[in-house]
Amino acid sequence: MEAAVAFSSYIDESAPKFIHRLAQAVAIPSVSTDAARRPDVLKMGAWLNDQLQSLGVTTKLADVGTHVVDGQALPLPPIILGRIGNDPQKKTVLVYGHYDVQPAEKSDGWDTDPFQLVIDESTGRMFGRGSSDDKGPVLGWLNVLDAHKALGLELPVNMRFCFEGMEESNSEGLHDLIRSEVAKGKDGWFDGVDCVCISDNYWMNTRTPCLTYGLRGIAYFKVTVSGPSRDLHSGGFGRVVHEPMTDLVYLLGRLVTPKGEILIPGVEDMVAPADVEERDIYEKLDYTIADVEEAVGAPITLSDDKATVLMGRMRMPSLSLHGIEGAYSGPGGKTVIPASVSGKFSLRIVPPQTPESIKALVVPYIEQEFAKLESKNRLAVEMLGGGMPWMADYKHWNYEAARRATEAVYKRSPDLTREGGSIPVTLTFAESLGVNVLLLPMGRGDDGAHSTNEKLDRSNFIEGSKLLGTYLYELAAIPSQ
Amino acid sequence: MEAAVAFSSYIDESAPKFIHRLAQAVAIPSVSTDAARRPDVLKMGAWLNDQLQSLGVTTKLADVGTHVVDGQALPLPPIILGRIGNDPQKKTVLVYGHYDVQPAEKSDGWDTDPFQLVIDESTGRMFGRGSSDDKGPVLGWLNVLDAHKALGLELPVNMRFCFEGMEESNSEGLHDLIRSEVAKGKDGWFDGVDCVCISDNYWMNTRTPCLTYGLRGIAYFKVTVSGPSRDLHSGGFGRVVHEPMTDLVYLLGRLVTPKGEILIPGVEDMVAPADVEERDIYEKLDYTIADVEEAVGAPITLSDDKATVLMGRMRMPSLSLHGIEGAYSGPGGKTVIPASVSGKFSLRIVPPQTPESIKALVVPYIEQEFAKLESKNRLAVEMLGGGMPWMADYKHWNYEAARRATEAVYKRSPDLTREGGSIPVTLTFAESLGVNVLLLPMGRGDDGAHSTNEKLDRSNFIEGSKLLGTYLYELAAIPSQ
Repeated sequence: MEAAVAFSSYIDESAPKFIHRLAQAVAIPSVSTDAARRPDVLKMGAWLNDQLQSLGVTTKLADVGTHVVDGQALPLPPIILGRIGNDPQKKTVLVYGHYDVQPAEKSDGWDTDPFQLVIDESTGRMFGRGSSDDKGPVLGWLNVLDAHKALGLELPVNMRFCFEGMEESNSEGLHDLIRSEVAKGKDGWFDGVDCVCISDNYWMNTRTPCLTYGLRGIAYFKVTVSGPSRDLHSGGFGRVVHEPMTDLVYLLGRLVTPKGEILIPGVEDMVAPADVEERDIYEKLDYTIADVEEAVGAPITLSDDKATVLMGRMRMPSLSLHGIEGAYSGPGGKTVIPASVSGKFSLRIVPPQTPESIKALVVPYIEQEFAKLESKNRLAVEMLGGGMPWMADYKHWNYEAARRATEAVYKRSPDLTREGGSIPVTLTFAESLGVNVLLLPMGRGDDGAHSTNEKLDRSNFIEGSKLLGTYLYELAAIPSQ
Repeated sequence: MEAAVAFSSYIDESAPKFIHRLAQAVAIPSVSTDAARRPDVLKMGAWLNDQLQSLGVTTKLADVGTHVVDGQALPLPPIILGRIGNDPQKKTVLVYGHYDVQPAEKSDGWDTDPFQLVIDESTGRMFGRGSSDDKGPVLGWLNVLDAHKALGLELPVNMRFCFEGMEESNSEGLHDLIRSEVAKGKDGWFDGVDCVCISDNYWMNTRTPCLTYGLRGIAYFKVTVSGPSRDLHSGGFGRVVHEPMTDLVYLLGRLVTPKGEILIPGVEDMVAPADVEERDIYEKLDYTIADVEEAVGAPITLSDDKATVLMGRMRMPSLSLHGIEGAYSGPGGKTVIPASVSGKFSLRIVPPQTPESIKALVVPYIEQEFAKLESKNRLAVEMLGGGMPWMADYKHWNYEAARRATEAVYKRSPDLTREGGSIPVTLTFAESLGVNVLLLPMGRGDDGAHSTNEKLDRSNFIEGSKLLGTYLYELAAIPSQ
């Protein structure tokens, strides 16, 4: 592992150069959700492509067409496909990241210009939109390539790259491209990939590196109760007609208890209780009730038991009521009986639950509950969207390599976590390639990825770059059985 | 009653002149809610004042000051106080009406210019903003005065007038003025008033004249549940924290059943069941389930029994859920856990209920129900506003006079109705003067007072003018014991 040691030293020595490159990347406001910023997204893609090529990566800017925004046809940013190394004796790892960012305006409440990397020397925090999500991690891979090129070292594995510019806008074009590249077999850019590594999430806290092996899926529902042909005045019609709001609130009140238990029969039963070994993972996680309370700004956890709270987020389904469309939502008072109201709620789901299996339980249950009301109003239940949950085998050599790399760089074992939200590309890679996918975060839980004052700690950027490179060495060293 | 007969004939003969005057009134767009229209409201007040004076009424334009709209100080339209007749042998009746109107734009969906009275000769419908609410009824009184002046007849009663220009804008300035005039005793404009007549509501249907003797009051509540310091993502925090929406929906679901029964202990108990005599009023009303269904555009009445439905509107309290502030209310889906949500609901209340007595039941009930949840979120319950219910003695000679007048003009007995909404000035007159108040509508239930294509039927205007005059003769004739 002489090479690995030289690599790490180089990373330390080159920190100023790497931070300068991150500043260049942050300075390009590649906001994919803003049509006016689309040229900047394209510029960012070109910049990243140049960087990859200058570091020895063969690339292709995959054109995935256009899409229509506000009646205007916009070019989708290219998906950058890349490869370096083609040694059949080596493992091949596919790396994913994204070069677009969330919107940001100084007026949103940023303390500094969001598109200028500003470093607080006293804390080592580097503020800027995209610093943590996801330009920092993407540039971490560039740092690894840079070090090897500068030191004249050969990479310990073959690498493949997939960097998109639409992650913050539903990854338009990505999933089809992945499936089509996989379908091309030997002629595709993903041929021979043994495992995938995605660095696009965060540590749970500010202290402990983690490996993430699971994501919840989602099933989003809209339940509509309709009555009169127009809004009514409650003076004239209160206690005269069946009021859609009364019916809807009754139905929404029969979905989940204030303790978070899902009342739809069958939903909870689909998930086996955690066994001793699994529960032990949660007990050991470096995360406290106080961490949750700090994150949400109030002492409102459903339980005072850490493992229960963490399992609630990571391995249990949840049901949240998001709001009501069609009812009065303004300030002050209005004496309306709304004619038609739609409740919005969603379930976060875990294996073996699927959106379809959840829908098959939710729709008849709401219909049955509504029937009990003997209301003369009309009911409609629909699933607005769904996404599958994902879970990887965390005993796989891909995870073992990441664990060893974490121990080497951070001198501690990583936490093994699952996340409550979803990163759809994870599932697309896992399903279409049929290989193990690892989520290996670089940033911390307080980076504020989609908020004002997004930051990446300097140490996370530098140690994180070492982590990514060391992971490649551990991948090379570990038996792939 | 020779005079009454001559009066009625004159009204018939003068219909074209009266309709022409109504057209003049409708042509002044006296929209009190629109600051830009305030000069038109003042113009309408001046026009009405001129009319009254030319018909022999002594008037005063009471200045009630200014109010601030969008940072701009606007003059409140004057309240027109008037008197004609001062014979101690005669009864004195106080008449109320308003000369402002609801907003109206052709683009709202009007078939004709809303500020031009357009008569459909085939149906006799006279379309125009204010035709029915409330310029038609106010001009009905002018027609009565006009007839007596033209015929050289003395009015059978002393009359007092109170016409305001802010009824559609919370009657700003009116209530204080009434109380202050009453307090002046002999020096006030309302001295010696024996009864009040307000013509500012509608028949229940399109067929049957009615007298209205009750109005429901209101108690409007806002219940707020707050949890995290900011909105959360349901992926990260679903089944981690107590969600304010879940708690709020639970609370809102415990206020009223889908059948309309109020679940707050004590609220229903305050209202005595209808006795046989009272129930008989509802049974006899010329109103059908089909009338309700037509009005609301759907077959959604809470009961198939007519009297039950009508009592639900007129003599029972009701509770309506209006909406939620702070939750997601847009179209499509959003996976938010709202940080703080406020449910809005109100009760329509009936004697002996008062806003305060209702508040004393509602607030502790919600607090107790919330305590049962063992939620760590925070609760706040407040009453945003309230209005007292009103009910008059419908056996009073004031009502008897109106009943006899209706029978004389329409050849049928009027329905005795209560309304579900409120007309606050009614209560102010009843309480400050301590006399019987009669609601004597001119228009029909389908006039569309606050809608597009507001109309008044020609026959309602002409026969209604006769009704108002005949009512004065019956008032004069009836013993005031």
